[in-house]
Amino acid sequence: MNFNEKLASYIEYTEANLKKYNNHDISTAAQSELVDAMNYSLEAGGKRIRPVLVYAFCEALGGDYTRAAAPASAIEMIHTFSLIHDDLPAMDDDDFRRGKPSCHKKYGEAMAILAGDALSVLPFGIIADDAVLTSDEKVRIISRLAKSVGRSGMIGGQVIDMANEERTDVTEEQLRYMYRCKTGELIAVSCAMGCICAGASDEVISAACDYGFSLGLAFQIIDDILDVTSTTEELGKPVGSDEAENKTTFVTLYGVDKAREIADNITAQAMESLDKCGGSDFLRELTEMLLNRKN
Amino acid sequence: MNFNEKLASYIEYTEANLKKYNNHDISTAAQSELVDAMNYSLEAGGKRIRPVLVYAFCEALGGDYTRAAAPASAIEMIHTFSLIHDDLPAMDDDDFRRGKPSCHKKYGEAMAILAGDALSVLPFGIIADDAVLTSDEKVRIISRLAKSVGRSGMIGGQVIDMANEERTDVTEEQLRYMYRCKTGELIAVSCAMGCICAGASDEVISAACDYGFSLGLAFQIIDDILDVTSTTEELGKPVGSDEAENKTTFVTLYGVDKAREIADNITAQAMESLDKCGGSDFLRELTEMLLNRKN
Repeated sequence: MNFNEKLASYIEYTEANLKKYNNHDISTAAQSELVDAMNYSLEAGGKRIRPVLVYAFCEALGGDYTRAAAPASAIEMIHTFSLIHDDLPAMDDDDFRRGKPSCHKKYGEAMAILAGDALSVLPFGIIADDAVLTSDEKVRIISRLAKSVGRSGMIGGQVIDMANEERTDVTEEQLRYMYRCKTGELIAVSCAMGCICAGASDEVISAACDYGFSLGLAFQIIDDILDVTSTTEELGKPVGSDEAENKTTFVTLYGVDKAREIADNITAQAMESLDKCGGSDFLRELTEMLLNRKN
Repeated sequence: MNFNEKLASYIEYTEANLKKYNNHDISTAAQSELVDAMNYSLEAGGKRIRPVLVYAFCEALGGDYTRAAAPASAIEMIHTFSLIHDDLPAMDDDDFRRGKPSCHKKYGEAMAILAGDALSVLPFGIIADDAVLTSDEKVRIISRLAKSVGRSGMIGGQVIDMANEERTDVTEEQLRYMYRCKTGELIAVSCAMGCICAGASDEVISAACDYGFSLGLAFQIIDDILDVTSTTEELGKPVGSDEAENKTTFVTLYGVDKAREIADNITAQAMESLDKCGGSDFLRELTEMLLNRKN
């Protein structure tokens, strides 16, 4: 299989598992609508980067990637929960997500809050109930996953992001820390979970996390750059929104050229970490694809 | 120790552990405010019924109740997360909770959403990171906990409750099912988790869950009754709110006397289940206290 075929097969497996895990084996019409709201956002697509990283790390380190179906599905649910809640009127107030009405526009605000809530909890049950992982593996995965989502992870990052919006003196260090929490943590834990499913050593897991944090940061800086260099058509969402919202980004701090240089340096670091943890050619191609993207 | 001393000691232990688990070992002022918002709601008090049940079942079945600190803290955090989100403007829109401004009135709506989110995820990490439970025990606890919170548990119950508000033809069976999901599941899983920490058999766990579901249902019917028979002063919240909101309750279905009779029958069932699973005198007294309460 070449890179594109492999990527397509991971994505297909991801989507089949999301369907399997969020099914309609429940009792009432109201609960059924909740499952619909969850599926609506789960099926909205996106790049499925996080589950792909889980599978790719598992396979790169000699594991059978189907062993990682539970954590791969879990991380995509957590990501989806964060998108649903971020779009709420009290948060970023976005009416559209990937060209479709956002969850609260389609199902109402109360149902969107509850769909996000259900998607924040279901992942832990899916991992605990998995038929192939050992109890020790499950506990290690859940411990890392909960930390990467919580106060000092993704949710903490969202809180810092909100606080930064009211400031004009955000430093590079503070911006890096916010990106690390908000985006880096979920990407790093995806890599770590794939490693755990392959029985990798702590040293390998640590290098895989380094890769994940570098990838996450470079990904965000590219986002900053695309917001000023892309077109709304190419990007699939309005460009120039960072400037309109007075956000501090790597571009507002350093300009496009220097931001691109920083992104390239961080990408080089990511590739070094990949070498250290025995990353595959697939992972190298994936990294290049994500950082040369146009949207 | 008599009943009241024992109850006070469980509650004291609960509150000390909540403080310990939701501490300020994080980096930024924004994250610190998130922890404050979480603690604000965690410290708002309440009866601490769920952690008390975890400890009391563990001890009744011959276990050391301090082994159950992680699941007991976890269940109170989950309960608190549900109260924060239920109070949001898009949900029940309550400005007060236990006589204090609700989380979103104090910290703003975005922070309240995120504080609830963080309290929905932290519990799973606390259980996974616990130093005394085995991996097998942790996995069994997390599996049950996630189910009791999710689509077919507490969150599913809230969805049914919202749907019922728009209906005038809710049957007793449907009302019972809604109460079972919304309240019963968290109470039953509290009992089950205490049993697991004591190494109890599946048969005992099953009887303990039966007790929990009966207690939860009786508790809700008493709530229905107090809403029409109590005073605002005694109850600590406005009475008559069910009627004002056109809610179907056991009182609107059957009147106060018949509702009281049903609650008494369910209490008798709860006591039978307690006998079956080897429940203690403390648990019997706790059951009576909860069902003879005035608020």
